[in-house]
Amino acid sequence: MEVGAVVFDAYGTLFDIDALAPQCESLWPGKGKAFVDLWRAKQLQYSWLRSLMASYVDFDVITAEAMVGACKVLDLPCDVSHIRSFLKIIRTLQAFPEVPALLKALGGRKRVILSNGSPAMLEATVGNNGLSGEIDLILSADTVQVYKPDPRVYQLVVDKLAIEKERIAFVSSNGWDACGAKRFGFWVSWVNRMRSPLDELGVVPDQILSSLAELPGYL
Amino acid sequence: MEVGAVVFDAYGTLFDIDALAPQCESLWPGKGKAFVDLWRAKQLQYSWLRSLMASYVDFDVITAEAMVGACKVLDLPCDVSHIRSFLKIIRTLQAFPEVPALLKALGGRKRVILSNGSPAMLEATVGNNGLSGEIDLILSADTVQVYKPDPRVYQLVVDKLAIEKERIAFVSSNGWDACGAKRFGFWVSWVNRMRSPLDELGVVPDQILSSLAELPGYL
Repeated sequence: MEVGAVVFDAYGTLFDIDALAPQCESLWPGKGKAFVDLWRAKQLQYSWLRSLMASYVDFDVITAEAMVGACKVLDLPCDVSHIRSFLKIIRTLQAFPEVPALLKALGGRKRVILSNGSPAMLEATVGNNGLSGEIDLILSADTVQVYKPDPRVYQLVVDKLAIEKERIAFVSSNGWDACGAKRFGFWVSWVNRMRSPLDELGVVPDQILSSLAELPGYL
Repeated sequence: MEVGAVVFDAYGTLFDIDALAPQCESLWPGKGKAFVDLWRAKQLQYSWLRSLMASYVDFDVITAEAMVGACKVLDLPCDVSHIRSFLKIIRTLQAFPEVPALLKALGGRKRVILSNGSPAMLEATVGNNGLSGEIDLILSADTVQVYKPDPRVYQLVVDKLAIEKERIAFVSSNGWDACGAKRFGFWVSWVNRMRSPLDELGVVPDQILSSLAELPGYL
């Protein structure tokens, strides 16, 4: 198979969510990691539930609602200033160290981001990491008003690039996203940095890597 | 509003999931509670993800897949005999103590179960609790091959009973299910036994109770 495009998930795949924890210490001293873990779990849950309930709101809103939900459980303060600060922190999320060299190495191919994030969030985060020149296209679930793993989100890539789905390499660190993309029909690489067990969703990715740095050798 | 039917969620609402933990001690000594907590989280997650991925399998399969997923994370053994035993245990799930008297007290109205469970699971669990005579109708997500909170599941009640949705009282202990049902248009009572914060999904139930025993006084 000749790969026509390499499509990356953003949060957790190109950008390091765990790196948020130390930054959140300034908002909730001693609770940064507990907050980030629960906030992320709720962010995903809310994105799936709102997709099923057909009550889409954009990913900034999901992010803020998940903050409120997590803070209630953890009994942490969460007013407008916390939300404003956190949405700023999210936009400066750091890329994993191997990302700039990886994107350069893939320079001959279309390099695409497909994410649940809103276009504004994604543009800001890519720009803040100095990667605007290394990403050819940013696609957001916002266009179809539903979140991954709904197949309409993955279909965005096919519609935009006009490449058969089997020739699209999809790369994600989120196991459920890798499974959703595989079920849709992409060739899928799961970047399993934590060596976690794969969730049992009836499909398995084509490839499992322990870091994005391994990817160019396989394409 | 005159209530035309009272519709109950099953797992966690009429039947006590936490009561599984001691029974699971025989399968995984010392790990019963850890297993039940993670298994339940994955069972919900998988039901939502498979609904979004349009790859429905019935709730016995979801249940078994969530067992495998949870056991991998917890490093517990999970072979065919564990799965067979657990699926049997699920069918003998105990009703909360207030349930028989509650259902009798509601006897003048249609008493319905609407659950993600497969028809066979639900019939068995209702029967094993001696409640077959107190439930007028069992409806399963299996009919529409997608799980709650997809509106097609809640619509099953409207189609089957031919009652306007505003006249249907929907009762669930699962906050996300209460929100899904409210978004759909039912009158919703959330039974919040653990006094947990409500998840932030853009809707709130009409009523919050701390036990099912309070319900008849409000209808």
